Amino acid sequence: MSTAPVPAPNVVPNLVPSYTELTRVYARLYRYNHLSAIVGWDRNAMMPAGGNEARAAAEAELSALIHRTRTDPRLVTWLKAAETEALDDTARANLREIRRDWRDANALPEALVEAKTLAGARCEHAWRSQRPANDWKGFLENFREVVKLAREEAQLLADDTGLTRYDALMDRFEPGVRAADIDRIFGDVKTWLPDLIKKAQEKQASEKVIVPQGPFPVAAQRALNLEVMTLLGFDFSAGRLDESTHPFSGGVPEDVRLTTRYSDRDFARSLLGTIHETGHARYEQNLPRAWLGQPVGTARSYGLHESQSLSFEMQLARSRAFVGLMAPLLKKHFGDQPAFDPDNLYRLWTRVKRGFIRVDADEVTYPAHVILRYDIERALVEGDIEPDDIPALWDEKMQRLLGLDTRGNYKDGCLQDVHWTEGAFGYFPSYTLGAMYAAQWFATMRRTTPDLDTRIAAGDLKPVFEWMGANIWSQASLWDTPELVQRASGEVLNPALFRAHLERRYC
Amino acid sequence: MSTAPVPAPNVVPNLVPSYTELTRVYARLYRYNHLSAIVGWDRNAMMPAGGNEARAAAEAELSALIHRTRTDPRLVTWLKAAETEALDDTARANLREIRRDWRDANALPEALVEAKTLAGARCEHAWRSQRPANDWKGFLENFREVVKLAREEAQLLADDTGLTRYDALMDRFEPGVRAADIDRIFGDVKTWLPDLIKKAQEKQASEKVIVPQGPFPVAAQRALNLEVMTLLGFDFSAGRLDESTHPFSGGVPEDVRLTTRYSDRDFARSLLGTIHETGHARYEQNLPRAWLGQPVGTARSYGLHESQSLSFEMQLARSRAFVGLMAPLLKKHFGDQPAFDPDNLYRLWTRVKRGFIRVDADEVTYPAHVILRYDIERALVEGDIEPDDIPALWDEKMQRLLGLDTRGNYKDGCLQDVHWTEGAFGYFPSYTLGAMYAAQWFATMRRTTPDLDTRIAAGDLKPVFEWMGANIWSQASLWDTPELVQRASGEVLNPALFRAHLERRYC
Repeated sequence: MSTAPVPAPNVVPNLVPSYTELTRVYARLYRYNHLSAIVGWDRNAMMPAGGNEARAAAEAELSALIHRTRTDPRLVTWLKAAETEALDDTARANLREIRRDWRDANALPEALVEAKTLAGARCEHAWRSQRPANDWKGFLENFREVVKLAREEAQLLADDTGLTRYDALMDRFEPGVRAADIDRIFGDVKTWLPDLIKKAQEKQASEKVIVPQGPFPVAAQRALNLEVMTLLGFDFSAGRLDESTHPFSGGVPEDVRLTTRYSDRDFARSLLGTIHETGHARYEQNLPRAWLGQPVGTARSYGLHESQSLSFEMQLARSRAFVGLMAPLLKKHFGDQPAFDPDNLYRLWTRVKRGFIRVDADEVTYPAHVILRYDIERALVEGDIEPDDIPALWDEKMQRLLGLDTRGNYKDGCLQDVHWTEGAFGYFPSYTLGAMYAAQWFATMRRTTPDLDTRIAAGDLKPVFEWMGANIWSQASLWDTPELVQRASGEVLNPALFRAHLERRYC
Repeated sequence: MSTAPVPAPNVVPNLVPSYTELTRVYARLYRYNHLSAIVGWDRNAMMPAGGNEARAAAEAELSALIHRTRTDPRLVTWLKAAETEALDDTARANLREIRRDWRDANALPEALVEAKTLAGARCEHAWRSQRPANDWKGFLENFREVVKLAREEAQLLADDTGLTRYDALMDRFEPGVRAADIDRIFGDVKTWLPDLIKKAQEKQASEKVIVPQGPFPVAAQRALNLEVMTLLGFDFSAGRLDESTHPFSGGVPEDVRLTTRYSDRDFARSLLGTIHETGHARYEQNLPRAWLGQPVGTARSYGLHESQSLSFEMQLARSRAFVGLMAPLLKKHFGDQPAFDPDNLYRLWTRVKRGFIRVDADEVTYPAHVILRYDIERALVEGDIEPDDIPALWDEKMQRLLGLDTRGNYKDGCLQDVHWTEGAFGYFPSYTLGAMYAAQWFATMRRTTPDLDTRIAAGDLKPVFEWMGANIWSQASLWDTPELVQRASGEVLNPALFRAHLERRYC
């Protein structure tokens, strides 16, 4: 953290600078958020069902407390006064981030924050059993309240920023990115993606693929995951791997909590999912220690976070070079079998298949899943459609984009994701922005390290870690997103690099 | 929770009764304590070492917040006004408990609470590696600060209550019990315990005991523990069993977190430890749901809590009747072996042995361990001795009470317990009070259910659960300790029943 500025001689002595007052409040918030992250992880990975009601009440209390802290009236005065104080560049960036956080928080009354947390926790908890039961009607009962509160929230944020409702929600995940940008980018993707999927599938139709034969014991899968996390640089003195229904990366930078889920018929799902979460984890674990506790020390955006997980899962783990490293590890943990031949594994892990489930989708069909959700949630938040309209729209768009029929199959359709259950609208575009950033990072790395793939194939992942460390992890929230992208890669987001990556790998 | 009283007609309408204001603050505290319990459990059972510093800061922040809430100046006004409000018996008891909590909290300034939490967390964390390293000198560095702060705390509590320093600390664990009472009880025990230990060992000298042969795989031990917890009525929809260095019962009544530790050479330690913690857990899980969230709905005292764990571990699990139920379960999980004969198991689990470690002690030598700690911690808190004096005193008392030499062996001596590391002085007497209460409960049950042991032997534990439910669990903090004991057993604490239990089983 930057040092406090020395007060000018004509200022009353012993007066604490306003910037210092702000950093104290945000250090306190950092500790509250620590508690929130750990009990949230616990709810998903550890808590028995009977604990839910008491936990929801405790988490709502904490959310309200965090909200009260972020809306303390003294912050307005300090923010204004801090503008005129002498601050170094890091403190100046921290002040900018504090102001951004303050603006987000102060658009919302405490009662709404509390109601939203409670409704989200209820809906999410009920969804855990409603999804396997295909119970869309039951889900709707809780979900209508979630949508109602999300619209109120979006309207208040919109009033405050002059943005549209959906832009106002999305701005919290991707600062500065607007629906108009997404429309342009996704509009472009729509022109070439169906054809690219078709080409990839035609090319792969003649490929022979051997499917690994299970069962793969959970204990062996876990041991494999831990070994691969170690290879990828995960620091186990500052984090763990556990299990949950919906895998996620949680915890705090000093103690990152990853989760996965296991099926003894398929090890790849858990392995590649764990590699994905390890990408998130390394970003968190390598944020600059000196800035931890202040907003400038946090990860830049959700899209950039996703660029890390997808760099690990898509750019790195599914490359032919990295697959060569995996083959001996699979033999070690599961015994040998023909499917573990590296060329076969590569064909298997780059297989393109139109499917119902977003989290199981390959990187070629994945953007279709995101575009579908973006269209629906944007209309839902703007009030153009109602929760009851979702299944029909879902069916129609799945037909159009992927040629799949999901009628009546809610559990593999609109009930499949956790995001909407908790009212997290505006997040989905970040996944595809993340994929595009990741393609841009690797294109940049290959320019500066032409033998990158040779080195990866030899097990030397240092060039990747060093590039990420220098250009992304260590930068935290020092710059806004466009400037960080420019500094890291020499240009702003260029979706053509993503298309080139897909064409090179799949066509 | 009791309903709010209707205001009298001459009172300003819409004025919230002061009692209701108090219940709102305590409902909020209940939620803060939920967060504290879960992150505390996590620190002990889940957290990697690298997370400690950030966690200590977050927990200190939460402790300070809880302290601020308990010292809100408005509480004084509300407490005074609530006295004159019309309240039913439950609300009246709740008000009494709120006043007790308020008195405890308001004797201490916030800075001391925060410093104590921080010093305790640091000392406890360092102790985890200092104990195995036998590093008393290293421990002292942190421990001096813990003792210094505990004395400050005790002095402030003493000033507030007119008690001595040690009585003031102990009163928080055993309301109304004084060092003078303990002196009398422990003084009595000292007159007959050495002789009873001698007699028991003489009787057992000629007994043939077959020791179970390991290894006992951890997975099988865990499965056995879970099955025995189920037999003992643990509700797994409202709790879990995990692992930690120092086993404990944590979490919240709606979500009880038990821990144990495993050694593959000895299953009994983990099994009987788990049975012990299950006793604590059933008390928590069966507190009256309607009162949860208010002080009247909490367990009565630490001694009464220990009476539950020792009822399960000592009175129940080590009875010949219950051992007969365990034998087939051991065969099921570990395969058959001669040691699993019920008579042999009974001899094994009631074996009296003078040993260094309190948590491994049998119920006959256990009081000696407690008396030793009581003598030392009382003198430490009163300022009659200093932390540096502890090892010599420990040696001297272990020699006198159990005839054992612990010189230089800190890890099996004064470094063995977690309590002092966190500054929890005044707690140790509760263990032996608990053992005495437990003996009194079973003496009472046997009066009303003469065939109790026949029913236990047949696997019917309902009489035990029903008696505990009606007399202890459901009563929460409705009565003070002496009245609860009187109502449950028809008389006040009678240590002769404990002596009679030991003589019947061991002499």
